[in-house]
Amino acid sequence: MKKIEHIGIAVRDLDEAEKRWAALLGRGPYKREEVAGEGVVTSFFDAGNVKIELLASLAPGGVIDRFVERRGEGIHHIAFATENIQAEIKRLQDEGFRLVNAEPRPGADNKMVIFVHPASTGGVLIEFCQERDR
Amino acid sequence: MKKIEHIGIAVRDLDEAEKRWAALLGRGPYKREEVAGEGVVTSFFDAGNVKIELLASLAPGGVIDRFVERRGEGIHHIAFATENIQAEIKRLQDEGFRLVNAEPRPGADNKMVIFVHPASTGGVLIEFCQERDR
Repeated sequence: MKKIEHIGIAVRDLDEAEKRWAALLGRGPYKREEVAGEGVVTSFFDAGNVKIELLASLAPGGVIDRFVERRGEGIHHIAFATENIQAEIKRLQDEGFRLVNAEPRPGADNKMVIFVHPASTGGVLIEFCQERDR
Repeated sequence: MKKIEHIGIAVRDLDEAEKRWAALLGRGPYKREEVAGEGVVTSFFDAGNVKIELLASLAPGGVIDRFVERRGEGIHHIAFATENIQAEIKRLQDEGFRLVNAEPRPGADNKMVIFVHPASTGGVLIEFCQERDR
């Protein structure tokens, strides 16, 4: 059974965005984490059944900065949890989806992640993530 | 405790979008519903812990058509469930959020809904919805 693991939100300024989301949700973030490989710093909120992941660029010109310049701040991706990312990759490729990366790479929160290109999903960047062995 | 009730996705063609999302999720939609007051036709998928709500315009020039023309197809809003929408309205106004409608109106799936304007949330259109008495 699939489920949504988190929703990623691209922001300019992580401090300001944390205040805004704390006011919206009525609770603060529970952790920050850098993902050096993706050039982002993340902040996580518990939204009950799903996490909200705020994403800001670690350095100017990073992938989130470019997204925000092009589209403005806003929802960046939806992430689905999977227990078998390799089977998911094969299934998605067989269905004709275009993957951003067909080789899982380290994401935030102890996950291996792949992304499905929005050009093949009707404009939605979709992540599939699997918990890494600890 | 807040939770995310659904994620709304703006699409051009509901038939095509249903096929795409059925392939992505590995399961089909479970219902379609028109919301005449909002000028939309919706299609719902069970994504485990959260619903995916595809939204298409009922007629050319509707709110979803205008969104798609401006931004392209993609994620339209995130909806939070609440058990007391009047208390939520007051809380959000006290926090300084700008509401699109401060008077709840009928949404899809037997809900009363309000929207928080993306200008006050960092680019994210946010819905709060409460189940209507049947």
